[in-house]
Amino acid sequence: MSAPTLADVAELAGVSRQTVSNAVNNPDLLRADTLARVQQAIDELGYKPNRAARNLRTRASHLIGLRITPVQEGTASVVMDRFVHSLVEKSGEAGYHVLLFTDALEDDPLTGYDELLRSTAVDAFVVTDTYLGEGQAAWLRERRAPFVSFGRPWDDDNARHPWVDIDGAAGTELATRHLIEKGHDRIAWIGWKKDSVLGEERRSGWLRAMHEAGLPTTGLASRVEDAVNSGCSAARVMLAEAGPTAFVCASDTLAIGVMHTLAERGLQAGDDVAVVGFDDSQVAQTVWPGLTSVRQPLEEAAVELVKALEGLLATPSQVGPGVMLTPTLEVRGTSGPDRR
Amino acid sequence: MSAPTLADVAELAGVSRQTVSNAVNNPDLLRADTLARVQQAIDELGYKPNRAARNLRTRASHLIGLRITPVQEGTASVVMDRFVHSLVEKSGEAGYHVLLFTDALEDDPLTGYDELLRSTAVDAFVVTDTYLGEGQAAWLRERRAPFVSFGRPWDDDNARHPWVDIDGAAGTELATRHLIEKGHDRIAWIGWKKDSVLGEERRSGWLRAMHEAGLPTTGLASRVEDAVNSGCSAARVMLAEAGPTAFVCASDTLAIGVMHTLAERGLQAGDDVAVVGFDDSQVAQTVWPGLTSVRQPLEEAAVELVKALEGLLATPSQVGPGVMLTPTLEVRGTSGPDRR
Repeated sequence: MSAPTLADVAELAGVSRQTVSNAVNNPDLLRADTLARVQQAIDELGYKPNRAARNLRTRASHLIGLRITPVQEGTASVVMDRFVHSLVEKSGEAGYHVLLFTDALEDDPLTGYDELLRSTAVDAFVVTDTYLGEGQAAWLRERRAPFVSFGRPWDDDNARHPWVDIDGAAGTELATRHLIEKGHDRIAWIGWKKDSVLGEERRSGWLRAMHEAGLPTTGLASRVEDAVNSGCSAARVMLAEAGPTAFVCASDTLAIGVMHTLAERGLQAGDDVAVVGFDDSQVAQTVWPGLTSVRQPLEEAAVELVKALEGLLATPSQVGPGVMLTPTLEVRGTSGPDRR
Repeated sequence: MSAPTLADVAELAGVSRQTVSNAVNNPDLLRADTLARVQQAIDELGYKPNRAARNLRTRASHLIGLRITPVQEGTASVVMDRFVHSLVEKSGEAGYHVLLFTDALEDDPLTGYDELLRSTAVDAFVVTDTYLGEGQAAWLRERRAPFVSFGRPWDDDNARHPWVDIDGAAGTELATRHLIEKGHDRIAWIGWKKDSVLGEERRSGWLRAMHEAGLPTTGLASRVEDAVNSGCSAARVMLAEAGPTAFVCASDTLAIGVMHTLAERGLQAGDDVAVVGFDDSQVAQTVWPGLTSVRQPLEEAAVELVKALEGLLATPSQVGPGVMLTPTLEVRGTSGPDRR
C-alpha cells in the first residue's frame, strides 16, 4: 500500500484538499471543529506531509502562467470564464495561483512567455490554443520551460509534454446520432474553414455518424467563418439547395446564425428544423427555446491539467500519457420532437 | 512643465506603454525599427525612466490579486471575461501581472485574501463585489492592505480607498429615455429584489426618466430573482395586468426571460413589444433580433483602476477621488420601430 496522500485525508475528513493544506500550513484559518476533524483523519491514516516536496516548492513562485486573449464580442463561444475558474480552483487546491498575461507585443504571442521566463515569475505554464500553429509548445520546449498543454500536440509527433484535450469529433458524433435517433435523415453540417484543424475534427464526427447510419452527406456540408452572419447565410443557402431537417454546427455562434435564418422565415427552431451547437455557451443556455449543445468537460480538464502539472513539477519529474476527455450533449428545445 | 512620462513617449512614438517599457528594460524584445522609433521619442522628449520608482518596484512582487467567483450558468450576464482581459492588459502596461484566486474556504471569502496577505504574494488587490456587504474593504483596510475597489463604497462614508464604479442609474435612465423617444408611454421595469443595492440603483434610473417625462409608474415595476425564469414569469404577469408596450430590465438575463414570454405568445420582440437589457452580454449581441442593452465601459474602468493602483503604490502614496463612469446604450432589434 502506498503512503496516504493529502487527497486521502481530504476524502476521509469530508473536506477539500485546500482545507487539509490549511490544516497543515495555516491552521488558524480553520474553524476549530473543522481542524479537529482533519486532525483526526490525519492521525487515523498516519498522513505525513511531504516535507521535501514542500521545501522544494517553497523556493518556487507557486505561480502558473496562463495567456488570455481578448473576448470575441458578437460570438456565443466564451468558454474561457468557465475554464479559468476551474483552473484557478484546482490549482489553488494544489497550492498554486494562476497568473494571467496577455501578449506584450501585439504581433507576437511569444513575447508574453518570454518576459515571464526571463523574470522567472512562474513555475510553469498552461498553454492553450495549441492548434493555432503558433509554435508555442516547440518554443517553450526549446527553452526547457515546464508546461502542460490544454490541446493535443496536433502537428508534433515528437511532443513529450503532458497534455489534456477534449475529443471534438466524439461531441459532434453524439450530436448527430441524437438527431438520427429523433428520426432525421437529412442532417446538414455547418463548420469552420478547412484550415481549422479543430473544425475538421468536429466535422469528422458528423461524417462518421452519418456514414454509420448510411445517410447521405453530399451537398450537406458547409465551411464558413465562425460568425453569426456566416451561420445565417450558410443556413439560407443550405435550406434552399439541400432541404435539411436538422443542422449540426461547429459552434454555438454558427448555430445561433442558423436560428436567425429560421426566425427570419417564421420557422420554429426545434419544431420545424432542429439545431445543435457546440460549447454549451450561456447563449445556448438562455436563448429561446434552449439550444441543444455539446458541452466540453472543462472542470475535468482543469483537474487533469493540474494533476499533470504536479507530476511535471515533482522530483523526479513525471510525465504521463496525454489525456483525452469526452464531451456530453445538453439536450434542449432546438432538438425538437421525435419525428418517427 | 512636469517631466515627460512613459505615457508621453508612448504617445509620441505611437506605440503602447508596454513597448516603451520594453525599449527601456528588454530592448531585444523589440524589432529594430520599433526600437529606433521609441528611442527617437525618448531623445526628443528628454525622457528619463524613474529609477527610484523602478527600484522600489523591483523589491515587490509585481502582482495584483483578483478574486474570481464561479460562472453563473444559465444566466446571460458574464462580464468578467471582458473585465479580466482589460485589467490584465492595462496592468501589464503598468508592469503588473494579475494573480487570480478563489475562496480557499467555501464559507468565507476572506480566507483567500488572508492567505495572500500572509505570503505577501501580491502588492495590492482589486476588489469587486463591494456591494455584497461582505466587508472585504473594511477587512483589508484594517490590515493596511493596499487595494482599489471596482465598486463604490456603498455603506461606508469613511472609506478612503481609491474606487472606480459605473453609474447604473444613468444606464437605465438612458434606456428608458430611448424608449420614450420611440413613443412608448407604458414602460415596465423588471429588476432585482429590494435587498440588492445595485438593483435599486438601476431601478432609480428608470423611475427618474419616467417621472421627468410625466409618465405613470404605478403597477409597472416588478422585483424578482436574477434568473431567466423569473424574468419570464414577471413579464407574463405584467403583460396580463398592466399592458406595457416596453420593458427595461436590470440585466440581460431578465430581458431574455421577457423575450421567452413574448416568443411563447407569438409576439415579436421589437415589433410588438420593446425590450432593453443591461450588460451588453454575448447573449444580447447574438440573440435574434439583437437585444438592445446598456453597456458598461469595462475597458475604461480597468484603465482607471490601474491608474488608481499606480497612485496607491507610488511613494508617497496618492489617493484620488472616486471615479464614476457612465454606461452607453447599444441599440439593436428589440428596440423596435419608432411608434410616433
